[in-house]
Amino acid sequence: MRSVLLIFIFLNLLYAEPITPIPQHIEVDEAKAALGKELFFDTILSVDNTVSCATCHDLNNGGDDGLRFSFGVDGKEGDINSPTVYNAVFNFRQFWNGRAKNLVHQVAGPVTNPVEMASSFNALVQKLKRTAYKNKFDKVYKDGITKENIADAIAEYEKTLITPNAPFDKYLRGDKNAITPKQKEGYMLFKDKGCIACHHGINIGGNLYNKFGVMQYVSSKRLGRYEVTHQEEDKYYFKVPSLRNVARTAPYLHDGRFESLDEVVKFMARYQLGQVITQGEIDKIVAFLHSLSGELPASAKR
Amino acid sequence: MRSVLLIFIFLNLLYAEPITPIPQHIEVDEAKAALGKELFFDTILSVDNTVSCATCHDLNNGGDDGLRFSFGVDGKEGDINSPTVYNAVFNFRQFWNGRAKNLVHQVAGPVTNPVEMASSFNALVQKLKRTAYKNKFDKVYKDGITKENIADAIAEYEKTLITPNAPFDKYLRGDKNAITPKQKEGYMLFKDKGCIACHHGINIGGNLYNKFGVMQYVSSKRLGRYEVTHQEEDKYYFKVPSLRNVARTAPYLHDGRFESLDEVVKFMARYQLGQVITQGEIDKIVAFLHSLSGELPASAKR
Repeated sequence: MRSVLLIFIFLNLLYAEPITPIPQHIEVDEAKAALGKELFFDTILSVDNTVSCATCHDLNNGGDDGLRFSFGVDGKEGDINSPTVYNAVFNFRQFWNGRAKNLVHQVAGPVTNPVEMASSFNALVQKLKRTAYKNKFDKVYKDGITKENIADAIAEYEKTLITPNAPFDKYLRGDKNAITPKQKEGYMLFKDKGCIACHHGINIGGNLYNKFGVMQYVSSKRLGRYEVTHQEEDKYYFKVPSLRNVARTAPYLHDGRFESLDEVVKFMARYQLGQVITQGEIDKIVAFLHSLSGELPASAKR
Repeated sequence: MRSVLLIFIFLNLLYAEPITPIPQHIEVDEAKAALGKELFFDTILSVDNTVSCATCHDLNNGGDDGLRFSFGVDGKEGDINSPTVYNAVFNFRQFWNGRAKNLVHQVAGPVTNPVEMASSFNALVQKLKRTAYKNKFDKVYKDGITKENIADAIAEYEKTLITPNAPFDKYLRGDKNAITPKQKEGYMLFKDKGCIACHHGINIGGNLYNKFGVMQYVSSKRLGRYEVTHQEEDKYYFKVPSLRNVARTAPYLHDGRFESLDEVVKFMARYQLGQVITQGEIDKIVAFLHSLSGELPASAKR
């Protein structure tokens, strides 16, 4: 019996796919997540009460805002494309330049960024203490409202924002008809062209940095990892983005330069892989990318 | 005239290759490098005066030791393959798990590693002060023999260990006959198969981390980046190694599991890219890899 099990495990490992499905559920602290959800949708987080997390991470719209650059307080425009909050928990680091090691550290970024929410945590803690949040935090956290607890609650909510059961995940789980023949061909091309070298794992990306413009120089205002490390060799290295729900998160790339999947697939093939790619191949890969759209979680509804 | 120049620059950027040549020379402090060279070859660095940097980084033998795992003091065997010291200055981080951000930080690793040199810097500083090194350090460094100055001198010497003028670099610089037609075909395959996605830049690698076993699970005792960050998502992510002088640095991979380039190319194609590859294609890629062997610098001679 034991040897049959071992052979089964061995064969599973041998024929494992480089992409793994999103789980149906991950454990969260429900009370903290509920508090975090309230904060996520509350504009109280911004200095002038105009911008919430949901402003740039619209949960009915792919978890981002569909804009090239987001607008923060006073209508100020940022200079980087909002990544989706969906499945962000599975990324190895947060932000395009990876400057936050997890969701808790990520929260501080937009809250204090002068062109996003432009708040300070001291001011925010004081503001929240004058509201019904005081009691709510006291119930959930021993030390009540603190910077750490605000971030912790929002991060706990964000952990619920996962999108299981994408057609491609069903296919990976064994339902061979969950995706179309064209999508299957697209997946084969995705592997054969080398896209898979960087877009793999549970988030089909989100787990390594690579250079923007491997094969040819590409202009970019933002400098990627260099902004964090100030090491010359990190210039233009960005976190490889997740392709989960990519059909819902236009525009594309860290500066939102492309509106369509067609354009970005063509660009990636040329600049990241030096591949000649036909329109027929692009169509198939784009069809495959559409199979990566999962089910929105119940927690995304207000 | 200016517009001609701009067009020239534009075309150069447009048709730039994803690999750039090793420069002929990089600036170093000659006095420090000379001191560092003496230390590099001196077994005084190890606790029992048996092991020098050159023990595992044989400069006449690809800059590594040709062993699967190196031997340190008391004949102790390590558990990771020595990477070459040649062109290490161009790597974005040092060590397979990237735990040192540059050569200066790297030096401390082997000196204090219990299975390598097993020394302590306090003991080493005291030992060196009783030798002719005392005067030599005093001449070059205001504060004489310190941990920092030992590392600085060795790192300064290592900066001289670059290997320019590989046939492939000559080809990149415009000498179209510097590599054979078979090597050119190998380079095309190297790009078409997707190897280039990770092996690019001046060191053809050495500038990002990726997962060991992208397409299928591969066993590995060492855990890569996880050893540094202790983050689950960093498990099995290793620095993509440089392919400079790869024909001289067998055995291959972080655990030296392969003796030949044929084997490692086949393995990489399957486990990192999920590519079917024929023996004819392997031959061409291996031919290309042989074009990456550069000239040894004068400073490598004792």
